[in-house]
Order: sequence, then C-alpha cells, then structure tokens
Amino acid sequence: MNDAYAVYPGSFDPVTYGHLDLIKRALSIFDGVTVAIAKNIGKKPLFTLSERLGMMQQATRSMKRVKVEPFDGLVVDYVRRKKAKVVIRGLRMISDFEYEFQMALTNRKLDRRVETIFLMPSENYAYLSSRLIKEAAALGARVSDFVPPFVERRLKEKLRRK
Amino acid sequence: MNDAYAVYPGSFDPVTYGHLDLIKRALSIFDGVTVAIAKNIGKKPLFTLSERLGMMQQATRSMKRVKVEPFDGLVVDYVRRKKAKVVIRGLRMISDFEYEFQMALTNRKLDRRVETIFLMPSENYAYLSSRLIKEAAALGARVSDFVPPFVERRLKEKLRRK
Amino acid sequence: MNDAYAVYPGSFDPVTYGHLDLIKRALSIFDGVTVAIAKNIGKKPLFTLSERLGMMQQATRSMKRVKVEPFDGLVVDYVRRKKAKVVIRGLRMISDFEYEFQMALTNRKLDRRVETIFLMPSENYAYLSSRLIKEAAALGARVSDFVPPFVERRLKEKLRRK
Amino acid sequence: MNDAYAVYPGSFDPVTYGHLDLIKRALSIFDGVTVAIAKNIGKKPLFTLSERLGMMQQATRSMKRVKVEPFDGLVVDYVRRKKAKVVIRGLRMISDFEYEFQMALTNRKLDRRVETIFLMPSENYAYLSSRLIKEAAALGARVSDFVPPFVERRLKEKLRRK
Amino acid sequence: MNDAYAVYPGSFDPVTYGHLDLIKRALSIFDGVTVAIAKNIGKKPLFTLSERLGMMQQATRSMKRVKVEPFDGLVVDYVRRKKAKVVIRGLRMISDFEYEFQMALTNRKLDRRVETIFLMPSENYAYLSSRLIKEAAALGARVSDFVPPFVERRLKEKLRRK
Amino acid sequence: MNDAYAVYPGSFDPVTYGHLDLIKRALSIFDGVTVAIAKNIGKKPLFTLSERLGMMQQATRSMKRVKVEPFDGLVVDYVRRKKAKVVIRGLRMISDFEYEFQMALTNRKLDRRVETIFLMPSENYAYLSSRLIKEAAALGARVSDFVPPFVERRLKEKLRRK
Repeated sequence: MNDAYAVYPGSFDPVTYGHLDLIKRALSIFDGVTVAIAKNIGKKPLFTLSERLGMMQQATRSMKRVKVEPFDGLVVDYVRRKKAKVVIRGLRMISDFEYEFQMALTNRKLDRRVETIFLMPSENYAYLSSRLIKEAAALGARVSDFVPPFVERRLKEKLRRK
Repeated sequence: MNDAYAVYPGSFDPVTYGHLDLIKRALSIFDGVTVAIAKNIGKKPLFTLSERLGMMQQATRSMKRVKVEPFDGLVVDYVRRKKAKVVIRGLRMISDFEYEFQMALTNRKLDRRVETIFLMPSENYAYLSSRLIKEAAALGARVSDFVPPFVERRLKEKLRRK
Repeated sequence: MNDAYAVYPGSFDPVTYGHLDLIKRALSIFDGVTVAIAKNIGKKPLFTLSERLGMMQQATRSMKRVKVEPFDGLVVDYVRRKKAKVVIRGLRMISDFEYEFQMALTNRKLDRRVETIFLMPSENYAYLSSRLIKEAAALGARVSDFVPPFVERRLKEKLRRK
Repeated sequence: MNDAYAVYPGSFDPVTYGHLDLIKRALSIFDGVTVAIAKNIGKKPLFTLSERLGMMQQATRSMKRVKVEPFDGLVVDYVRRKKAKVVIRGLRMISDFEYEFQMALTNRKLDRRVETIFLMPSENYAYLSSRLIKEAAALGARVSDFVPPFVERRLKEKLRRK
Repeated sequence: MNDAYAVYPGSFDPVTYGHLDLIKRALSIFDGVTVAIAKNIGKKPLFTLSERLGMMQQATRSMKRVKVEPFDGLVVDYVRRKKAKVVIRGLRMISDFEYEFQMALTNRKLDRRVETIFLMPSENYAYLSSRLIKEAAALGARVSDFVPPFVERRLKEKLRRK
Repeated sequence: MNDAYAVYPGSFDPVTYGHLDLIKRALSIFDGVTVAIAKNIGKKPLFTLSERLGMMQQATRSMKRVKVEPFDGLVVDYVRRKKAKVVIRGLRMISDFEYEFQMALTNRKLDRRVETIFLMPSENYAYLSSRLIKEAAALGARVSDFVPPFVERRLKEKLRRK
C-alpha cells in the first residue's frame, strides 16, 4: 500500500535532532518514510549532496522503514514517481508557517493529488534551525545539544577547512 | 490496522464546506476518518449536539469510510479508546496556528502516543469560520457559498426562532 | 461620483484618536467618508448607539465631507444601499490583520462589488484599542492621550455610574 | 536600591510551572521580585484572590527575595507605589506578543517611568496557559506536568464542587 | 483630479495573475492606476527592466486607465512627481504585512502627504509570489495557473538560456 | 555588582535613533550597558567595524554608564567574559520576535546562565531598521528622522563613494 508511505523532503544541511524527532513521529503514523534530500537548494549548502546523504543515513541507521534518497526537480514530481501521496513538513514557528503554507499551496496547484501534512516537533527542538547551528558552530560553539555527535565532528572539520 | 484511522475532533456548529474539504483530504491519506463532535464546548453552541451530529452525518453521507460520533472529555482519551493514534486539525491562519499549536502540545503532554497532524484546507475555504458564518446568517446574509444547502436552511430556521 | 465615497464601519465604543487619525487619512484619498456605527455588536457596548453616534459627530464636527450614521445588518448591504463601493478599515497589528482579512474575504463572498481597503494609523496610535482604553479608565487611569477630552469625561461619568 | 526590584503582575489562576520558571529567571537578574496578583480580572477567576495568593505563596516558599501581594487598579500605579520601575512579563507565543505589546505601550503612556521587560520561559513551558490547564483538568486530565502537586489537588477539589 | 490616480509600485519580475487581480481591484476604486516598475531592485532580477515593462504592458493591454512606467529612486518622490497621493500594495500574508508595514511607515516619514493603502488579492492568488513561480519554473513546473500564457513562454525561454 | 550590567549586542550598521532609545531604557534598569558591536556579521556591512564603533561612541558620548566594545565569536562567550548575565534585545515587530526567540533559545542552550531580556523601543521607532534606512539613503532620501545628523552625513559620504 503505497499511500501509507510519506516523503520528507529538505536540504538537511546538516541533519539535526529536530529532523530526527520528526522522522520518528512520522514513523508512528505511516508505514514508511522516505527522506528526500534536495540536490540543489537556493543558497550554497555547507555539505555536499553526498555528505548530506551519508549523514542522514548514519543518523537513521537504527530506524527501520526509513529510506534516504537524493532528489532533483520538483517535490511533487518526485512524490508521484515514488507513487506516494503525502509530503511531510515540520512546523516550528510562525515564520515557518508562512513559507510552508505558500509552498504547500503551490505544490497543490502543481499536483492536486499530493497532500502536505504538518507535524509538530518536540518543544525541545521547536527553535532548532540548521542555519543557526552552522552559525553557532562557525563561532566555536558546542552544538552537541542540537545534532548527533558525529555530525558535530563533521561540522567542526568542515568549518575548520573553510 | 487501527493506526490508519484518524480522528477529526471539533464542535462543528455547524459543519461548513471547509470541514468537508478537510475530511476529503484526510480520506486520501488515511483508511478512515472518525469525525468526533464535542458534546461540551466552551461557549454555548447554536445547535444541540444531536443537531450537530445529524448535520454532519447528512453532509458526509456519500463519503465511505467516515464515521460520525459524539465525544465527551479529553480528546486524547477518546482517541485512545478508539485505538487510534492520529488527531487531524485544519490550519487556516495564524491565529489558528497559535491556538492549535498550544492545544496539540498540551495533548501531547497528556498522552505521548497521540500525534496531531495538520492539513491545509483549500484556499477557497482558508478564511471560513463557523462563527463568522453564524454572524453573517444572523444579519440576513446568504451563506450558500460556505455551507451545504440543508445547513443554510437549518441556520435560517434556528436564527428565526431565536 | 459615488464611488469616491468610502464607508468606515465599526462600533466606536467610544471613538479614539486612532479612529480620528484614520478618518483624516481617508479624507485625503476619498471625496467623502461615511462613518457607519454598528447598532448591534457582539459584546454589549459600554455606550448606547445614540451616545456613540453623538460622540463621533462631536469629534468629527470640524471635518467637512464626513457623515456619521447608524447601521444595522450586513456591512455589504449597507454599502450597497449607500451606492458606495469601498469599505475602509484600519490595520494596527497582526491580530487585527487576521480578523480583518477573514472579515474582508467573507464580505467579498457576500458581495463581490464591495472592496475593502486597509489604511495604517499613525504609529502613535498603532496600539490603541477601545477595549484597553475602557479597561484603563475603569481602573482610574487618565486617558487624555487616547481620546478627545469630552470623551474622557463621558467615560468617567459612565464608569462611575456602573 | 528599589530599582533593582521588579514587579510580576498577573492573575495566576492558578500558578503554573511556567510562572515559577519566569520568577526564577527574574531572580537571576533582579535583587527581588514582587508577584502582584490582580484582584479583579476580566473574566471571573476559578480561584478567589485569597486562594490565588495562598497558592503562589506556597509555590514560592523556598525562593528568597520573592514577595507575593494582591493589587487593585492600574499596574503602573501599583509599581509606582512600590517605588519600583520594572514590570516583568513572560513572552510565550505570538498571540501573547500582540497583547503584551499593546498593554506595555498603554502602560508606558500612562506612566513613562515604568519600563516593561520581557523574559522567555523555558521551551518546556512555552505553550502552558492557565486557561488550557483548567479546561484539561475540568475534563479529567492529569495536569501534574503543568502545575505543582498541591495546585493539582486544589484544581480537582475546586472543579468537583462546581 | 490627480488624487484619484493611484501608483502601484513593484519589481514585477515577472507579472503574475495576483498582480493583475490587484490592478483590477484598484481600477474599481480609482480613476486610474500607474504601474511603476522599479529599475533597481535589491536582488538581481531575472528579467531586464525593459522586459518587465513589456510584459506588464502586454498583460494590461485590455485594461483602460492603466499606465505602465519605469521608476528609479524613492517611491515617494516618484508619487509626488506624478502628482499622485496614493500608493497601492497587495497584502497577502503575515510576512508581507510586516515588511509592508515597515515600508509604508518609512515612506510616510519621508513624505507625509503620500498615503499607502492595502488591497487584498483574490484568495486564489493569496499565496502567489514571483519568487516561488520562478523557482518552480526553473525546476520544470508548468506555471500556467499563476501567470498569463505569454509570460510562461518567456519564463521558459529565459530559464533555458541560463 | 556585575550582574547589574547588561550587554546589548548587534551590528549597528549604522546606529539609529531606535538603538539609542533602547540604550536609554536599559540604563533606567541596569547600572550600566555595554554595547557590543559584532565584528563579523552575516552579510557584508556598509560600515567597517571601526566606523561602527566610532559612530556608536559619538552617539552615546553624553550617556554615562555606557561602554562601547567590539566583539567576535559567540555572544554568550562574550557575556561570560564580561562577567555579565543579561543580554538586551529590542523587540520591534513580529518578524523580529521569531528570529529573536530562536536566537535567545539557542543562546540559552549554549549557556544556561545567560538570560536574554526584551525591551520595547518607543512606538516612534517601532518600524526603524538599519537596512531600510540604508536603502532609503541610497535612493537619495533624507534620513534625519531616523539617525543622528552626523550619521546621516556619514551615510551620504559612504554611499556616494560606492
């Protein structure tokens, strides 16, 4: 039953505890979740597509029913090719809501059969953003409360080399 | 598989095209939807519980896989008794978001196993609210764009008698 | 040319400097402004309809091209009867925006020919609300920064008698 | 040095872990905090003034430098009488922000010498509201995650008797 | 009567059905509308000024009382030179509101005689943004629901050449 | 007593009347305020660090108990080195709130001992932003309502040379 699979698209640059919390919540509802990592994102990513894929795979290793894949082009086209119908997005704060609402309505116009559903992350991660974590790490902060240990190491290596 | 059933709680005083749009979207994702109509709501409802149940049943008559039931007490207790795990809510606008966010987090604290997911109604119903419809109808407005014809008639009868 | 007249509906319980600022702005755009004072408003008003009319008339006495009238029923019906096309509303803050947006879209559905436009009050009045002023006056505050002197006197008399 | 004392006004109907979290944060900044419990609040409170005072006193018993007092009338007048200058408010969510912003600006107009500052509660309490807790308790929910044990007991007794 | 003319400034990169909907609404209120296309915009536009002018002219060809012009420098200076007094802006969503509010207040400080009014686009275009349309088109989406056919063709040509 | 000192961090590119209003408010609460000017900010600043320091020093010359310093790295580390505990931020509008909330929660995770408090600027500066002022000045606007005269001159010189 393909309908019971959900697609969770994003740039995941890098994966945070907030993303992982959301994937677990989605797994409690759907038979499986495909994490779809965008090849091209608006701004230049810190990590390459292959690094972002690798980190997500490592972070979700212990979760059954999770697949990690790259994608290119429109989310709705990807969802259709996967014969899925549901896109999952996290809803953290108001500014999120605005952007997400606009995206979801645009996606709906592009393909009426794809439905976007919103999940709320744990309140402990309600304020997490990959951007803030990268900024904090670049300034020397310990970010072990925000990302898995191996991601923190990767962040440090990456930012040192820059 | 009970997990694939979702509960859509509310006061539905009365049912609007916005509610029906949301139920259809939920049916495209879940195996079934139980519309749970709250017996007691904060403010005094215009329609009795039995009237609200009757109107929702009539409005969803043609939809398979929809059950309409009254409920009393906590939403999370009802969901657990139904052996369901998912609560559905519509997300129309910012003010919605605030209240819904607060409710969903409170429900999560009350029962960690119940997950709330948010769906977006069609942009044509993004501004609909039962309250505004009742106000408009009370002032003599035609509300046929907002509610099914039989609900419009019931609204008129009810408001005339007041 | 009736189109150049605008209707400014509200409860004005009582009129504030924020309302008067908005009327002046509207007069700089339109040939005339009709202030339409709602007979019935959701919550019980502090001042009677006739008191609210009287205070608004006194406050706008020096402004040419302003008419003050009571109205009952739907705003859009009133606007149509006046052969006007434009409804004016002030936009103070976010919460305003939500409610106003919902109202304006509902009104548009009720009559497509009526257009709502939004004006911004002076930043000095961006936070004024009749409700807060009444609450403050009831607790003994001087409200001379918020309402004309004669309105402040009327507020005091009214609240003393309660 | 009176200036280093801050006033934390509210209805506290009843006190929650969110309020207590805020008081602790304020104590890390100010020499002392006076919790000022409003005698009259807009809507009828569930607990009497004396019950609300008693519960707050019990909940803050172990905190030095906290005083609990009733107040009546305008917050700014109370602050002035106390020879304090700072009002503390918690900022949980957007809707809060709107209302708080409006209140703080009105208070500033009423007395320019009183400054309102905003603190952020722990993210664990970011969604707590006395209203939601009362609603949940009335429907039979355990609210031990939200309020101290003795407050939970008082809520149950109060709601049973209703 | 110059006052009855309104100026609708923007980058229009490219014109969307949302913009055209707003122009029609403005025409129902004002004697004429001048669409003022900004020469320099913050980020580099996809289309040149002359292309943006050409597309807007073609899209508004059938509308009498619409003029399309380029402008450079401050909006308020342009409005004054045109002997107009009213600036029109669309208000789609919250994030809009913030930015627009800030802009309008800044413009008011720069020239007190220029008034900004806000109109609401049709709910069918409430989520449209030139940016999202360009992103979607760049990823291969059909955007015929969002822009006139000739604009869709121009978007495809432009994005192919990039 | 170091605790009574507060740190006001920012890019101040350039200092505006809004910033100065906030510093004065903070001085009414705290024994002293250290304005900490960020060396590196996300986007390239218009003014160099040394220019931003100089302008802030000149603008706060008459205020006792204000220190102006550059800082690099994490705000929380700087605050700790200064043996201070309080970070001050201005809260102008909703979009501010979102970002500020996220920042403050991230900072709290990085160092639990640092508390962020929010102050409201005067309503006359509620809409001011360094970005909008730079944009307006670049287009030839007089910005004397927004910044001190010597800053206006510096803005003109800087923008002429570009």
